[in-house]
Amino acid sequence: MKKFLSKRGQSWAKEMSPLMNADFSTREMRYDPETRPNGHINMGTAESQLINKEVIELLEKIQSRMTIAPKNIHYDYFYGSNDFREAIARHWQHLIFGDESGRKITKENIVIGSGCSLALEMLGTVLGDPGDVLLVPAPYYSGFGDDMSERAKIELVPVHCGPELTKAAFEEAYEAQVAAGKKVVGVLYSSPNNPVGTVYKPEYMQHVIGFCMKHDLEIISDEIYAETIHDPQSKWCSTLRLVPDEYLHRVHVTSSFAKDFALSGFRTGFAISFNPAVIAAMQNLSYYSGVSTHTQLVLTELLKAPELPELLQRNREELQKGYKKMVEALGEIGVQTLPAQGGIFIFADFSRFMRERTFAGEMELWQKIFGELKVNISPGQIFASKEPGWFRICYASEPAVVDEVCRRLQTLIR
Amino acid sequence: MKKFLSKRGQSWAKEMSPLMNADFSTREMRYDPETRPNGHINMGTAESQLINKEVIELLEKIQSRMTIAPKNIHYDYFYGSNDFREAIARHWQHLIFGDESGRKITKENIVIGSGCSLALEMLGTVLGDPGDVLLVPAPYYSGFGDDMSERAKIELVPVHCGPELTKAAFEEAYEAQVAAGKKVVGVLYSSPNNPVGTVYKPEYMQHVIGFCMKHDLEIISDEIYAETIHDPQSKWCSTLRLVPDEYLHRVHVTSSFAKDFALSGFRTGFAISFNPAVIAAMQNLSYYSGVSTHTQLVLTELLKAPELPELLQRNREELQKGYKKMVEALGEIGVQTLPAQGGIFIFADFSRFMRERTFAGEMELWQKIFGELKVNISPGQIFASKEPGWFRICYASEPAVVDEVCRRLQTLIR
Repeated sequence: MKKFLSKRGQSWAKEMSPLMNADFSTREMRYDPETRPNGHINMGTAESQLINKEVIELLEKIQSRMTIAPKNIHYDYFYGSNDFREAIARHWQHLIFGDESGRKITKENIVIGSGCSLALEMLGTVLGDPGDVLLVPAPYYSGFGDDMSERAKIELVPVHCGPELTKAAFEEAYEAQVAAGKKVVGVLYSSPNNPVGTVYKPEYMQHVIGFCMKHDLEIISDEIYAETIHDPQSKWCSTLRLVPDEYLHRVHVTSSFAKDFALSGFRTGFAISFNPAVIAAMQNLSYYSGVSTHTQLVLTELLKAPELPELLQRNREELQKGYKKMVEALGEIGVQTLPAQGGIFIFADFSRFMRERTFAGEMELWQKIFGELKVNISPGQIFASKEPGWFRICYASEPAVVDEVCRRLQTLIR
Repeated sequence: MKKFLSKRGQSWAKEMSPLMNADFSTREMRYDPETRPNGHINMGTAESQLINKEVIELLEKIQSRMTIAPKNIHYDYFYGSNDFREAIARHWQHLIFGDESGRKITKENIVIGSGCSLALEMLGTVLGDPGDVLLVPAPYYSGFGDDMSERAKIELVPVHCGPELTKAAFEEAYEAQVAAGKKVVGVLYSSPNNPVGTVYKPEYMQHVIGFCMKHDLEIISDEIYAETIHDPQSKWCSTLRLVPDEYLHRVHVTSSFAKDFALSGFRTGFAISFNPAVIAAMQNLSYYSGVSTHTQLVLTELLKAPELPELLQRNREELQKGYKKMVEALGEIGVQTLPAQGGIFIFADFSRFMRERTFAGEMELWQKIFGELKVNISPGQIFASKEPGWFRICYASEPAVVDEVCRRLQTLIR
């Protein structure tokens, strides 16, 4: 049947990657302590399941007290209703600049899309042409490939720069790309970093800003985990806050309701930009990724809900517990982890269980953990990890599930 | 600020078209009999406002009786949850083939996207390459351009074939395209037709099917108005029902909740296809236009709601009244209309009010009606109308608004 498709249609009709498939093909065979004790466990998806009860209770409250007006069931701006973008502007003003700051986020700075993915894809399309390069501190979120490369055809080049975001590493990567005849359009990064969970320190983020200003580059700062900082000692800071006035138009922030609000299914993300031309272009593109006005209404009410701060705090506390528990359990089987201050994942070194210290050995171990232990975790290679043997574990599942994962992982040392 | 954008970014950073802008720029200045009697009235958007109260009441009922499960707030298949695609399959099985038919629509035939627009865009991308041609019986829905041409770069070629969909017109258009070196990949059409409201008769749809089978072409059948037939004498029929078994894989149907269910804001559409390669390609593409799982839950419950048939029937009855009233009011000022059996619009000949019978004259009259009467209706040129002077009027507004429009239009004869 593929013969009836166009050339590009045939290229889209590909099989899912084995790693995506690992999650999707086992969805209906999931672990349940009672009914399916030998079932599959997915620790490959960055979702917090820890506050499901509280989130659902709040959604039910919101539904019962909200008023659906005709405008909430009919067409609105594809890039987001005024009410919704205003509510987003208020919430992220507080988070990014602080309420008292002279720098103001308004609804005119915001464009909505179906997920942070779409916000990133729109920015990639608007700031780069096919073949253009974004430098990305590595290891980095594997989904950036889907967001930036798959359709928008922006090439991602890893920069192995450590948590200090060392300028020398960016300079080296930049020079190599320019020498290869490539156009570098900017830097893409997220704080906290995914998969490591590093909350970058402001003085280190200044390295990125200085490097970009020197070479006249755009900065795409994915701040989707801004309120998912589980280390109470760590202070998160937006790139927009750090950049000087004259570079404000060159920094573009993305976020969504998927992580901080534990609402990944809502597929509602957005970009914040102070470049009106970027906003205009994304407004047109947003036609192709509109968000349900009903969902916009629910999320507008959520942002206004007096219960919200407590919910976000609850999420952080539960993640903190989960993080500590998982680090400890991994330690017991001799698996070291990189220190994380935020995010919903741990980057852990399983190399001692590999037959050989290569990426093939990493995949072999992944196959064993997935096939035999029926636990899906993500090999570091897909995050552009430098050394083989690292895996990302998304640990934010119910305690009984985490216990079962730890029990299964312990069988690795036998 | 445009200088910082990529080439394609700059091309997206264009101004809105004057006609789109006419709607969007006047949104906050809308007519209200009490507070803004001289305000703008939009009759350019195909939405039924006639059952807002009933739809909102039903949504509130559904919200209060539905159970939000963890799976409804977290990631699911981007192409639609199993529950939602099953509910869609059941509803459209009934509508397209009938419950007793041996031809069965299952969830495997369905891919969701953010609006019927996205369903069409995905099909365009999958079936055609940039520059490829779809033949479209004209006049046709102006939005097909955004859906098919703007980003997917499929060229639309109007076929002026009348309500009989005469084969000769298709043959002529086809030959001209082939002679010009173009690849024709298929036919795109909707029944009821937008902007005319013609429900095509099965014997005439067979002309399209025969033509496509002869030339080995795909058929994209937009059936978004299938349940919006206000003429009780008229019987709607799906193209999928008419096609022989061996051609079932070449017909692709699109629909959504925007028109029949009066939920345009929900941005939830889908494509039905019996070609598994088309489905696989669209599943991958749907990553970029996911629909909120919360919205999917609400719509799943809506499809199961015992109140639904009455709601759809109510919509048809109200549209029937509105249609008759508007045809009559237009007749009073000497404006003839084409007979419509379905849809939410009337195609009407205003040429007697034009200074000259050209498309420039049409735009001049549009400017007068929009600028002076503050009524937004859509000039036929954007629907690839053959003769200048025709306008599409979406009349499904509250009775008081329709009265005011008729009052204002009557000033044209002075």
